[in-house]
Amino acid sequence: MVPCLASRWPARLLRASPPCWLAARVRGTPRERSPRPRSPHEAGRGCCSASGAPEVTLTPQRYAVQRLPFSAVSEQDLAAFERIVPGRVVTDPDELQAFNVDWLRMVRGSSKVLLRPRTTEEVSRILRHCHERNLAVNPQGGNTGMVGGSVPVFDEVILSTALMNQIISFHGVSGILVCQAGCVLEELSQYVEARDFIMPLDLGAKGSCHIGGNVATNAGGLRFLRYGSLRGTVLGLEVVLVDGTVLDCLTTLRKDNTGYDLKQLFIGSEGTLGVITTVSILCPPKPKAVNVAFLGCPGFAEVLQTLSTCRGMLGEILSAFEFMDAQCMKLVGQHLGLASPVRDSPFYVLVETAGSGAGHDAEKLGHFLEHVLGSGLVTDGTMATDQRKAQTLWALRERITEALSCDGYVYKYDLSLPVERLYDIVIDVRARLGPNAKNVVGYGHLGDGNLHLNVTAEAFSASLLSSLEPYVYAWTAEQRGSVSAEHGLGFKKKDVLGYSKPPAAVQLMRQLKALLDPKGILNPYKNLKNGPVSTSRGATLRRVRRNLWNVVLAVARVLCAGLQWAASSRAQDAPLGGQGPAW
Amino acid sequence: MVPCLASRWPARLLRASPPCWLAARVRGTPRERSPRPRSPHEAGRGCCSASGAPEVTLTPQRYAVQRLPFSAVSEQDLAAFERIVPGRVVTDPDELQAFNVDWLRMVRGSSKVLLRPRTTEEVSRILRHCHERNLAVNPQGGNTGMVGGSVPVFDEVILSTALMNQIISFHGVSGILVCQAGCVLEELSQYVEARDFIMPLDLGAKGSCHIGGNVATNAGGLRFLRYGSLRGTVLGLEVVLVDGTVLDCLTTLRKDNTGYDLKQLFIGSEGTLGVITTVSILCPPKPKAVNVAFLGCPGFAEVLQTLSTCRGMLGEILSAFEFMDAQCMKLVGQHLGLASPVRDSPFYVLVETAGSGAGHDAEKLGHFLEHVLGSGLVTDGTMATDQRKAQTLWALRERITEALSCDGYVYKYDLSLPVERLYDIVIDVRARLGPNAKNVVGYGHLGDGNLHLNVTAEAFSASLLSSLEPYVYAWTAEQRGSVSAEHGLGFKKKDVLGYSKPPAAVQLMRQLKALLDPKGILNPYKNLKNGPVSTSRGATLRRVRRNLWNVVLAVARVLCAGLQWAASSRAQDAPLGGQGPAW
Repeated sequence: MVPCLASRWPARLLRASPPCWLAARVRGTPRERSPRPRSPHEAGRGCCSASGAPEVTLTPQRYAVQRLPFSAVSEQDLAAFERIVPGRVVTDPDELQAFNVDWLRMVRGSSKVLLRPRTTEEVSRILRHCHERNLAVNPQGGNTGMVGGSVPVFDEVILSTALMNQIISFHGVSGILVCQAGCVLEELSQYVEARDFIMPLDLGAKGSCHIGGNVATNAGGLRFLRYGSLRGTVLGLEVVLVDGTVLDCLTTLRKDNTGYDLKQLFIGSEGTLGVITTVSILCPPKPKAVNVAFLGCPGFAEVLQTLSTCRGMLGEILSAFEFMDAQCMKLVGQHLGLASPVRDSPFYVLVETAGSGAGHDAEKLGHFLEHVLGSGLVTDGTMATDQRKAQTLWALRERITEALSCDGYVYKYDLSLPVERLYDIVIDVRARLGPNAKNVVGYGHLGDGNLHLNVTAEAFSASLLSSLEPYVYAWTAEQRGSVSAEHGLGFKKKDVLGYSKPPAAVQLMRQLKALLDPKGILNPYKNLKNGPVSTSRGATLRRVRRNLWNVVLAVARVLCAGLQWAASSRAQDAPLGGQGPAW
Repeated sequence: MVPCLASRWPARLLRASPPCWLAARVRGTPRERSPRPRSPHEAGRGCCSASGAPEVTLTPQRYAVQRLPFSAVSEQDLAAFERIVPGRVVTDPDELQAFNVDWLRMVRGSSKVLLRPRTTEEVSRILRHCHERNLAVNPQGGNTGMVGGSVPVFDEVILSTALMNQIISFHGVSGILVCQAGCVLEELSQYVEARDFIMPLDLGAKGSCHIGGNVATNAGGLRFLRYGSLRGTVLGLEVVLVDGTVLDCLTTLRKDNTGYDLKQLFIGSEGTLGVITTVSILCPPKPKAVNVAFLGCPGFAEVLQTLSTCRGMLGEILSAFEFMDAQCMKLVGQHLGLASPVRDSPFYVLVETAGSGAGHDAEKLGHFLEHVLGSGLVTDGTMATDQRKAQTLWALRERITEALSCDGYVYKYDLSLPVERLYDIVIDVRARLGPNAKNVVGYGHLGDGNLHLNVTAEAFSASLLSSLEPYVYAWTAEQRGSVSAEHGLGFKKKDVLGYSKPPAAVQLMRQLKALLDPKGILNPYKNLKNGPVSTSRGATLRRVRRNLWNVVLAVARVLCAGLQWAASSRAQDAPLGGQGPAW
């Protein structure tokens, strides 16, 4: 712990602070800390289960889910795939293992085949084949998702974008990058940073995650506060539809109001409406100066006022506003040995600025800090004067997930809530669970109204789970919050969509799914609860009804015809014979 | 003209510049200058046709368009409407006139009824009725569009949002505004500015346009460069679907990844997929300082380099980068008597900064100006040291449309192009038209890659038009540009969608239209060329084919049955009689 630096801040801030770009490399993430799934250490439970992790239970054994009537991959299918992506059809069970399990090691599929296309044309041919054959497909990027959306549930064909990793173009004036979906975010960051731009998103999983997966899941991240959603920064997409049609919406224009903005359908649809193959994205200029401050606040009300003051005084240079509670600090200290740089406080806030003038930014930050300290909103604080210290401060926020993993079994919730109620749920849940929980902590991207509520216990407990769910979801729904702020629904949260969306919206989502993927083969069992099934059922019912009606009509016609025939036959028998049937 | 101020700039810039908020009130607009349609002066041809404008030709008489087989409004319908919105059913032809004509006075419908709902429930009941009765509906906001999308083409029922003008809530910390669709943008601006926020969009039409119309047309505007598209700033929408279903996607959350983002379907769909009734939008904090500089550049290459330098040196405080050519300056001088504040130059640039520290911003701007003047990118310039001067500088850019209107008949194009090719089309068109055009000018939002190409002539000429179209569209398509950057397609540009979107995209748009509006009653004849028609035709063809097949099947069955009957009849005649027909 360092002493309060209030009196010294303004003077120090007036000195140019060195940029701390490297800090970004070690940051936490809205998807929290998402390691590469290939590494047992990272894919396990952080520091506590580095090796020898038990086999993950197969998803259908753990969750109540039935395989839909898709075809099974046959030898003929494998031969067809081999013709499309020669030498890039993986069927070796050992090799497939990592692609069947999510990195949290909570869900596991049993796919028998993984395909590694390199081009859009190959993706198109794969999907056309699967569509014709009614084979389910699981599109997979870096497999760093938090909700089991990126791995198969049963034996879906895994369609990996790993080899689609080419940068197609970068425009040095506008900062528009066009690249294949399988490009790794960190590599793209390095590429554009070398050209004085940055990617508009940054995640802890950047070393593994693919830009296509980021877009398909509408990833939030650490730069969301400053640069907004991918819905604004993604300019164009190339997508392969389920029947193999290539939808070229790959514009590199900032403005285009010609017709409906189709790319929006695919952003955040988690691979259930089409497979993103190429992305065009607007990169902001690289800020020349980055400063980080870490503050202690006496209460959540003061945290909120600090946010408000921050917005007013730092304005356009504010680039991150993260918060964590005292329990988080306790856990990073206890499990990871990280020391708090400020006096013990009920809440901590991390403020980052990024701007084009180091001196100006430091001066603004100095005035802000003077104000919040003077008014008692902040009781203690420190700030990064060098890159190493910035990293150290960011680590306190970023490594919370890791510390939680060390604390026991973790129940994770990623909620959007009105900021003034954001911490109430942590207090409620803490009171509700009492000694049944080991720790109930709250942290997250306060600037975006995004809370990560995490509960730890010695081990998984069904009764603890039933105390948490649906309580947490219902609580969130009462505030008109979102039960998945940035993680998506994937497999694990598909059942709770109704807490954040009304029936009419869910119905329209199903209609969209039925329109774009009538057989429901794209990433099935994800995103919409029984979506394709119920839609298919609806469609089936309608089809059955229509066919029945056709049968009735045909029967009626035949009866009429028969009667006419009979009548005419009788007429032929009559002395004054007439004509034949009149059809 | 004032002398070059280069040497004095940095010193002057260090003085705090007074904010120039009022400047925004008189600014031009991406939709250019869009007056209230009620005023003949404004709705006419600017200074040249202030009064006595001739009756606008009925759209079907001017354009090749056939009425689709919608029902006509009956006395029973009027009675039903009167029950839904008592006292707010307008049928007086004089009163209807202003709502049948667009403000550019290029298109005119012949609607016999206008409805003024106040609530979502009323909109729902109106649409339910119209859907059941197959009555076409033209949703109308402020009627300030540029492409004839906001007025009826034939006798569509006009559904006005004018009385849906209530602010529902405003959150003073997050800056999230929730309001009805009929709120006038300028009133919303005043409301949030009084609370230290600004609207994320600003248009010249702000005094008339409705926020619902802004969202429905995905309006760009003067703040696009800084705050991005409405696709990022609109957080939630309430929309009434064609059958009256109320779709509540009215979240006030910055992040929500639960299911597909349905609101995106309606942003920019020009009222063809549903009627927006309530909007939730994120307002940025009000900048504390605004500076405006007006610069002369020796060539377009220097304009581009100035943009690039500007982005690098002004970074996060850059809020507008507009350009205009010498011809524009000539016209505002000639027709409006505005004098250029800088030496005659081939190109002019307007740079605006908006930030949270007046001194810092002025210093940054000063360094930038020193650099661009020193390097020869800019040959002369001036900057606003007071609000009045800022307004004067903005007027040079904003009043171009008005000056063009005074110059004769105007052919207008709103294009998105790669910035490095952006001005080439102006040069090409100027050479192509030669003396047939009076003036060919280029200006626009260079920071967004958005060019307004305008051609004036003494009067409308079909041959001049045929020299322009499809040439301009094909030229744009070659650059993978957009033939409508921010104006939308509406009625007038629906035929050119194919220049910016491939067939697969157009096909999917039609499928979406068919899904959400199967009868095609929502703002028909707009957005998609023969969209609903061709979709309906497609559906009809499929239906006809299916029915024919059913008939063939039925006939075949009947024939079989007949044969069986005949056979059985003969069998009955035989000594060893059998059974009857087996159906």
